[in-house]
Amino acid sequence: MAAIATTPSQFELAAWAKTITPSALQDMLSATANPEVISFALGLPAPELFPRHQFSQLASTLLEAEPLALQYGPPSTTLKTAIVSLMAQRGVRCRPEQIFLTNGAQQGMNLLVRLLLADGGSVLLEDCIYTGFQQVLDPFQAKLLTVPTNPETGMDVAAVEAHLAAGQRPSLIYAISDGHNPLGVSMSLAQRQQLVELAQQYQIPIIEDDAYGFLSYQADTIAPMRALSDDWVLYIGSFSKILAPSLRVGWLVVPEWLIERLSIVKEASDIGTATLSQRLVAAYTQTHQLTTHIDQLCQIYTTRRDTMFSALEQHFPSQTRWYQPSHGMFIWVELPTTVDPFKLLDRAINQAKVAFIPGSVFGVAGKSMSTNGIRLNFSNADIDQINAGIERLATIMQTLKA
Amino acid sequence: MAAIATTPSQFELAAWAKTITPSALQDMLSATANPEVISFALGLPAPELFPRHQFSQLASTLLEAEPLALQYGPPSTTLKTAIVSLMAQRGVRCRPEQIFLTNGAQQGMNLLVRLLLADGGSVLLEDCIYTGFQQVLDPFQAKLLTVPTNPETGMDVAAVEAHLAAGQRPSLIYAISDGHNPLGVSMSLAQRQQLVELAQQYQIPIIEDDAYGFLSYQADTIAPMRALSDDWVLYIGSFSKILAPSLRVGWLVVPEWLIERLSIVKEASDIGTATLSQRLVAAYTQTHQLTTHIDQLCQIYTTRRDTMFSALEQHFPSQTRWYQPSHGMFIWVELPTTVDPFKLLDRAINQAKVAFIPGSVFGVAGKSMSTNGIRLNFSNADIDQINAGIERLATIMQTLKA
Repeated sequence: MAAIATTPSQFELAAWAKTITPSALQDMLSATANPEVISFALGLPAPELFPRHQFSQLASTLLEAEPLALQYGPPSTTLKTAIVSLMAQRGVRCRPEQIFLTNGAQQGMNLLVRLLLADGGSVLLEDCIYTGFQQVLDPFQAKLLTVPTNPETGMDVAAVEAHLAAGQRPSLIYAISDGHNPLGVSMSLAQRQQLVELAQQYQIPIIEDDAYGFLSYQADTIAPMRALSDDWVLYIGSFSKILAPSLRVGWLVVPEWLIERLSIVKEASDIGTATLSQRLVAAYTQTHQLTTHIDQLCQIYTTRRDTMFSALEQHFPSQTRWYQPSHGMFIWVELPTTVDPFKLLDRAINQAKVAFIPGSVFGVAGKSMSTNGIRLNFSNADIDQINAGIERLATIMQTLKA
Repeated sequence: MAAIATTPSQFELAAWAKTITPSALQDMLSATANPEVISFALGLPAPELFPRHQFSQLASTLLEAEPLALQYGPPSTTLKTAIVSLMAQRGVRCRPEQIFLTNGAQQGMNLLVRLLLADGGSVLLEDCIYTGFQQVLDPFQAKLLTVPTNPETGMDVAAVEAHLAAGQRPSLIYAISDGHNPLGVSMSLAQRQQLVELAQQYQIPIIEDDAYGFLSYQADTIAPMRALSDDWVLYIGSFSKILAPSLRVGWLVVPEWLIERLSIVKEASDIGTATLSQRLVAAYTQTHQLTTHIDQLCQIYTTRRDTMFSALEQHFPSQTRWYQPSHGMFIWVELPTTVDPFKLLDRAINQAKVAFIPGSVFGVAGKSMSTNGIRLNFSNADIDQINAGIERLATIMQTLKA
C-alpha cells in the first residue's frame, strides 16, 4: 500500500510537557558506563559487591522449577513477609497487608504523589532535595512550600511549623530521615518527633523517603519516622541500594486503607512490578543472606567514605568544607567560593575523566540555588579510584583558579 | 522512644483518587491463580508455552558473565535494534532512535497520555475499550469523546470525522488496529488509512495499541497504522503477549523528538525499565528463536480459538452470537438477552469454577453500556479446559434461565 504523505509538523504536548528540560541522569548513566570515568556522580552501588552468582543460581532454579515464573501474577506474599522482617531491623513494626510493592523507590514516590496531590495543591519540601522527587512534581505544577535545609542540621522543622501555623495546608510533606540526598545529613530524633507531631496535628501525611536508610555507618541509629506513626507516615523503601537496582523492586509501608487505591494507580501505570524480579528478591531473602550482605556493604562503604575524607583532606584546598554522613552514599562538599562547580564539572569530565553532580541542580525549582556545594558519591568507586579521582579533581580545580 | 499517639483519621486524597473504584484485575489474577479455575477472563498467555528453559540458561549465563547485570543502566541498544527487526515483520520501518523501552504496553500508554493530554483536554476513543486505558485517563478527568464500535466492523471512523469536523480537538485518538480488546475485531485497511488521514489533517496524534497484533491467525495481515505515518501514529508494542509478561518489557515507536521527553517522564516514574529484564529479552532475541516462538503461539492459539468456536456451537443456546477474531486472545460472545452476564459470572466462578469478563465493564465511563456481550479469552486454557469450561458455562446458563 502507498504510504500517506506525512508533514514535518509536530503535535501538541500538554502544557507542562513543553517545559520539560533534559535530565542529567541518562547522560550520566551513559558517561559513567565508560570504564575510564571515575564516577562520584550517581547513587550507584558498588557493582563488584552484587551477589551475582547467587542470583544466577536462584534465577536458573526458579525458571526451571516454577511454571508461572514468566506469567503475570499477584504481588508476592513471600516478598511482603520478608520486607516486614527487614523493616523490623529498622525498628518499624508493620504487617504484610501494609506493604505495597513498587518498581523501586522512585515509583513509590510517584504513585503516592499522584494519589495525594490535590489539584491546585501544594507540597512542603526542603529547598535542596533529590531531583527525582522534583521531577515527580513537575506535571502537577504544584505550589512548592520550601523550608531551609543544610548538610549539618538538615530540615528546618521550625520552618515547617511556621508554614502550617500561617495557614498553609500542603497535600503532603516530603522528608528523608537518613542519608539525605544530596546533603548526606540525617534527622535527629527530636526533628523526627516534631515533624510527625506536626503531621498529626495538621493532618498532613509525610512521605518518608528511606532509599538510603539501611546503609548505616554508626552503631546507634534512630528508627525512621514510620516507627512513630502508622497513620501519618508513608514510608518508601527500596532494594536498589542494598541489593540490585536492575531488578527495580521497592516497597511502601502505608495504612492498609491506601493499598487498594495504590493497586489501581499502579495497575494503570504498568500492571504490576515484574513478577520475575519479585520472585528473585523473595528467593534471595529466603537464603537469609540479605542481612549479612547489607552489613558487608556498610563495612566497605564506611571505608570508602573515610578514604574520601582523607583524600579531600590531603588534596583539596583548605577553604573546602565537607560533612560526615552517617548514612547513605553521598558526601556534600562546599568548594572555595572562587570555584564554579559547573566549570569544574566540565573540565573534570573531559580532561580528568571524573564525574560528580554540582549541588545547585538539587535546588528546588523556582529558587535558583546559590551554592558552591557539590555532591560526591563514595559507594561506586573503589579505594584506589577514590584517591585518584579526588586528586584529579583537586588538580583540575587548581587550573580553574589560575 | 515512646510512640506518639496516632489518630484513626485519614488524610485527604486528591479529588479523583477519592472516586477510585476497585479493579477486577487483581482479584481475577488471584482467582485465576487457583489451578481449579478455568480462566477465560484475562489476557494471559499459555504458561506451558513460555520458553522457561531457555530463559533459565540465559539468565544464569548473563548473571555470571556480565558484571553490570544487576546495576542501573541505560536502555539496551541491543534490544532496540532487535525491536526494529521485529517491527519490520509487521511491515513497519523504523530506527532504533525511535524506539522507547517501557514496562509493558500499559506503561507505554500511561507515559504517552501524560505527555499528550492537555489540562481540560479531551480524548477520542471507542465506546467499548480496554479498561486499562480508561484507568490511565481517570486521574485527568478528561472529556471523553466516544465513537461507536462493534465486534464485526470495529471503530466507526466516520464518527471520528464527525467529531473533528464539528470542531472537537482531542489531545489524542486511541485505537487498536488488530485484535481489539475486548471485541477481537481488526480494522480494515480503509479504516486505518482514513483514521491516519484524519490524524494528519487535524494534527492529532493516534495512540496505536498493538499489544496483540503479533498474534495473527490468518495469512494476509495488514500493517499497523504506524506503517502509514511516522509522525502521527505513536505505536505501542509489548513482549508480554508474545514472550513473557513477568519481565514487563514493552516498547513505543515514536517520532525521535519525543524520545527525550519520554525519558524524563519515565525517569520520574521508575528510573528505567528493569535492566535485567531488558538484557534477558535482548539475549533471547539474539538466539533467533522469537519468530519461531511467535509462529508456534499463533498455531496453538488458532487451534484454541477454533476449539472454543466448536464448543460454543455445540453447547451454547442458538440465540448466542460470536465473532471470529483474526488476531489476539479474545472472542466476543453475545449472550441471549435473557441472560445477565454478571449473574452468570457469579455462578460461573463459584459453582462452575470458570471465569470470564462481562462486556459492560469495558463500556467507557459515563456511558453505562448496555450489552449482553462477554469477553472470552482462548489463549490461557488448553483444549480440554476450553471444552470443559464452555460446557460448564452453558450448563450454568441453563440454571439461570430456569
